[in-house]
Amino acid sequence: MSEARTAPIVRMAELEIEADQLEAYRLLLAEEIEASVAMEPGVLMLNAVALQEDPAQIRILEVYASQRDYEAHLQTPHFLKYKSLTSGMVKALRLIDVDPLLMRSKMD
Amino acid sequence: MSEARTAPIVRMAELEIEADQLEAYRLLLAEEIEASVAMEPGVLMLNAVALQEDPAQIRILEVYASQRDYEAHLQTPHFLKYKSLTSGMVKALRLIDVDPLLMRSKMD
Repeated sequence: MSEARTAPIVRMAELEIEADQLEAYRLLLAEEIEASVAMEPGVLMLNAVALQEDPAQIRILEVYASQRDYEAHLQTPHFLKYKSLTSGMVKALRLIDVDPLLMRSKMD
Repeated sequence: MSEARTAPIVRMAELEIEADQLEAYRLLLAEEIEASVAMEPGVLMLNAVALQEDPAQIRILEVYASQRDYEAHLQTPHFLKYKSLTSGMVKALRLIDVDPLLMRSKMD
């Protein structure tokens, strides 16, 4: 297996949600995050926040243990459910590959 | 004490760093993050990443236990050192107040 397939994947997702769908979207996103982190060993972090000045603007910082784990995540029932049920709620989605500089937490 | 002073503070910082200062900046940022999370009980998370398409673009997701903890953080020697030594390296800084939707990690 190449190094690229075993290195962690770190990414930011920037989403804009339809204003009248925001409450429904937040519930589906929370359900998907809980399930992913609880059930998938390769999903290491999902931190979702909403901009105070525009709560329809969502940002998610995501860490997967490897490219293989990320690809497996995309095939899970909980992710497919989230993707299907939110497809009409998302006005814009930008996925930004990032490199971790330093990630430190004592929240969990 | 009002609720506003005891609720967690969650924020994103978006920085653009002078390209020729990037290595020096990254070292100072890493030192500041390590010191803050290690020494300050009220600094709960500092996750710093760089955009792969433009490594001079830094994003930091920050969680402080309260407004009081955040204000105390701004007065620590390690923060003041970071702020002073990096002041000429930062081309742009945008601080974005956010509300947490769901933050889950098993990295630490």
